[in-house]
Amino acid sequence: MKLSDIAQIIDGKVVGDASLDIVGVNAIESAKENEATFISNPKYAKFLSQTKAGCVIVDSSFDISDYKNNFIVCDDAYLGFARVLRYFYKRDIPNPYKSEKAHIAENADIDGSSYISDFVFIDEGAVIGKSVMLMPFVFVGKNSVIGDNCIVYPHTVIRENCIIGNNVILHAGSVVGSDGFGYAHTKEGEHIKIPQIGNVVIEDDVEIGANCTIDRAALGSTTIKKGSKIDNLVQIAHNVEIGENSIIVAQTGISGSSKIGKNVILAGQSGVAGHITIADGTIITAQSGVGSNIKKRGVFSGTPVYEHSKWLRSSVVMPKLSEMYKKILELEKEIEELKK
Amino acid sequence: MKLSDIAQIIDGKVVGDASLDIVGVNAIESAKENEATFISNPKYAKFLSQTKAGCVIVDSSFDISDYKNNFIVCDDAYLGFARVLRYFYKRDIPNPYKSEKAHIAENADIDGSSYISDFVFIDEGAVIGKSVMLMPFVFVGKNSVIGDNCIVYPHTVIRENCIIGNNVILHAGSVVGSDGFGYAHTKEGEHIKIPQIGNVVIEDDVEIGANCTIDRAALGSTTIKKGSKIDNLVQIAHNVEIGENSIIVAQTGISGSSKIGKNVILAGQSGVAGHITIADGTIITAQSGVGSNIKKRGVFSGTPVYEHSKWLRSSVVMPKLSEMYKKILELEKEIEELKK
Amino acid sequence: MKLSDIAQIIDGKVVGDASLDIVGVNAIESAKENEATFISNPKYAKFLSQTKAGCVIVDSSFDISDYKNNFIVCDDAYLGFARVLRYFYKRDIPNPYKSEKAHIAENADIDGSSYISDFVFIDEGAVIGKSVMLMPFVFVGKNSVIGDNCIVYPHTVIRENCIIGNNVILHAGSVVGSDGFGYAHTKEGEHIKIPQIGNVVIEDDVEIGANCTIDRAALGSTTIKKGSKIDNLVQIAHNVEIGENSIIVAQTGISGSSKIGKNVILAGQSGVAGHITIADGTIITAQSGVGSNIKKRGVFSGTPVYEHSKWLRSSVVMPKLSEMYKKILELEKEIEELKK
Repeated sequence: MKLSDIAQIIDGKVVGDASLDIVGVNAIESAKENEATFISNPKYAKFLSQTKAGCVIVDSSFDISDYKNNFIVCDDAYLGFARVLRYFYKRDIPNPYKSEKAHIAENADIDGSSYISDFVFIDEGAVIGKSVMLMPFVFVGKNSVIGDNCIVYPHTVIRENCIIGNNVILHAGSVVGSDGFGYAHTKEGEHIKIPQIGNVVIEDDVEIGANCTIDRAALGSTTIKKGSKIDNLVQIAHNVEIGENSIIVAQTGISGSSKIGKNVILAGQSGVAGHITIADGTIITAQSGVGSNIKKRGVFSGTPVYEHSKWLRSSVVMPKLSEMYKKILELEKEIEELKK
Repeated sequence: MKLSDIAQIIDGKVVGDASLDIVGVNAIESAKENEATFISNPKYAKFLSQTKAGCVIVDSSFDISDYKNNFIVCDDAYLGFARVLRYFYKRDIPNPYKSEKAHIAENADIDGSSYISDFVFIDEGAVIGKSVMLMPFVFVGKNSVIGDNCIVYPHTVIRENCIIGNNVILHAGSVVGSDGFGYAHTKEGEHIKIPQIGNVVIEDDVEIGANCTIDRAALGSTTIKKGSKIDNLVQIAHNVEIGENSIIVAQTGISGSSKIGKNVILAGQSGVAGHITIADGTIITAQSGVGSNIKKRGVFSGTPVYEHSKWLRSSVVMPKLSEMYKKILELEKEIEELKK
Repeated sequence: MKLSDIAQIIDGKVVGDASLDIVGVNAIESAKENEATFISNPKYAKFLSQTKAGCVIVDSSFDISDYKNNFIVCDDAYLGFARVLRYFYKRDIPNPYKSEKAHIAENADIDGSSYISDFVFIDEGAVIGKSVMLMPFVFVGKNSVIGDNCIVYPHTVIRENCIIGNNVILHAGSVVGSDGFGYAHTKEGEHIKIPQIGNVVIEDDVEIGANCTIDRAALGSTTIKKGSKIDNLVQIAHNVEIGENSIIVAQTGISGSSKIGKNVILAGQSGVAGHITIADGTIITAQSGVGSNIKKRGVFSGTPVYEHSKWLRSSVVMPKLSEMYKKILELEKEIEELKK
């Protein structure tokens, strides 16, 4: 593919040899003569003189005047790079297949264009859309529905009555539709399980990482809306709702019935208590804990969270707490002296 | 089922039309004319005038005099609701079945009343009790024993020599009996694995969430006692003991050899260091870390934990640390001035 | 096995009856006459008068003059114990086997000495070394390579193009080679998936716990170096590098492209941000968060981390913050008074 063609894909402009042929994409340190690379962080500019890359994708804000490389200049180098990468490394769409070593219930409705691997278990009444790929050891429970163009990696469990949209990716080992953690408690301290009779709804274009757990609702639905992306080992409790295009980073946990807005970012190992509402566009930093509603978007940190800018300042003081404590005692004494 | 019959199940009293027929249960906003609902949180009382529910279960403390709905008044509305829900949504007990697509070792002892799905692997010497349901892709290791009335969801791994009691529920993807994390260390910095030759014992009425890991003991047993409930993605290390009726919320981790008492609550993402003892009835709040023994029950927060009431007060001060620090420096200067 | 033979294995010296026959190993409280035990923590010395153990392994620093037990005295009792335990409880090496109930791609290269259980899926081009044990429900993706003497427990997923060294142990439910969490973002707030076309390389003698997630690199490799040990439920993001003989305790998360040195310890539930470098020999304590490079080894705690010794002192002050705040306000007033 010629540089000029790549430029067209990403709405960019070639500076250099537009007729050069590119066959793949690589990191700036390892790219070969026929590969494209990118710089979105200026600190990688130092590699420009050494890289063998046939072409470097850069932002229009990047000053290329000092360099002799071939460039494609575009609005957002990282986004451009992503698009080129997607062009060269299209997902393997296997030919339609229904393994005889799979268990497929007689009344399950599997589109003929889908790929059902060995050791897949599809229970009664399940519906599988077009061009879906179910990898080995996937379990699809009774009456669950999977839309078109989904990839379900090995060992994923989708329990009964759940609904998965189109273009959804479920990574290995994730569990969709496990029982919510709900009990009533007797005076004697025993816990009486509350049947969890709701389901999970995952909308279009959602990606869910490996070994996540997404509990079904007690009543109603746990919902993950269109375009949200969830990393590995994330816990989403019953009746949670996650808005569109939100990002939930690894090992985060969201407790029951909380509502996360659109375009929210919950960074790694953060936590949200139950029955909380978080405003659209909010960012919660890593390891923070949200214990009450966030009504206005902002960046928040700490357990419990407060404004990130204040948290940064408090963090500087944390190592000095003991010194502060002693100083207060000293000042107290000195004031006593002065009073005398 | 008549209202009068439901009242009997939950030891309550009908106020309204006791002969009304109820066929299911639902949330107050969505309940239909032939469904029961409940109020345990007074803030939902506002829905009473709109709900179509045929009956509302309430606590005896709730003042129903202003409303015309049909009520069942009982001691604990949430517990009553749980019991009604359990009545209407009894677990599917499938007919006895042994799939020919399962691997069952010749000398495994499977009760004839149990359901062994396709793609189950039961190793030599394993024993499966009455009315057990093993879902697809369950692994039962050598000589492990599962009691009566257990449900084991897809992809659960029970390794060799473990003992599971009666009425236990194991959710999808959990691992029972993985090796404890034990090494001796050479002077050269290498780690020599200590064989983990103990097992895991899970007593009656325990429920374990999805994608948990419960390590086998190095020597002896890791034990989870009767009636304890464990949420998703929880880590329980080797030789831990969890007392009766305790609650371990999602993403919590308990390090090796710690002993958690009865009726303890460890909230989400909390952690317990190794060789710690926690007193009966203790509550550890979310994201907190227990680094030393808790000898007297109480509510504790923070890393490391201290009294929750103090933690709440400290939390209010956290955003002001930088301001406090500056103020101390100012006071110091002023005192210097005064001294002069 | 005679005491004198055991002493030879661990380079120790018998004090007592060197001809006594030992058949196993146990904890000091439960050991029988023909079992060995050990003391590495002096607080267990109180059991010495009661134990039935045929022999007690102790450090040379332990004063045995007051006791009549049979001892083996060596440099490091715990290491000695580990070695004896490994002698008595050697791993079950099953006879070579290729189950007809496994799916093995025609062009996969499986050494004849390995054990491939029922319900294993080995995809095209995969290579399995000598004396490897693949337990049920293991998935090995296209062109992945597993070295010699590896044990892969049930439900482990190794996706395509990954490389596993020799003597590696992968515990149940772990996922190796899931897609890294990488997106470019459009102005409209949508997330464009960046294909993750790298792999995971796990070197010799690594052990990985249950239900971990180790993402493949975007480009290049995510690497875990020789001898490192990883506990359960650990998240390792794309392009991370973990040095030799490091220890990553349960529920820890390491974000993308971070480089962890040799002999580092990341304690439980700790977190490392992206693009961070951590020096060899560093210790991060439990629940701590590393947000910037650690250039010099040390012990660090807190979120964000600072020196552990200071953290300990700050921890003592944390419960007194509210009191400190009030005191500062009081001092301020008193100084105002004095000024007048």
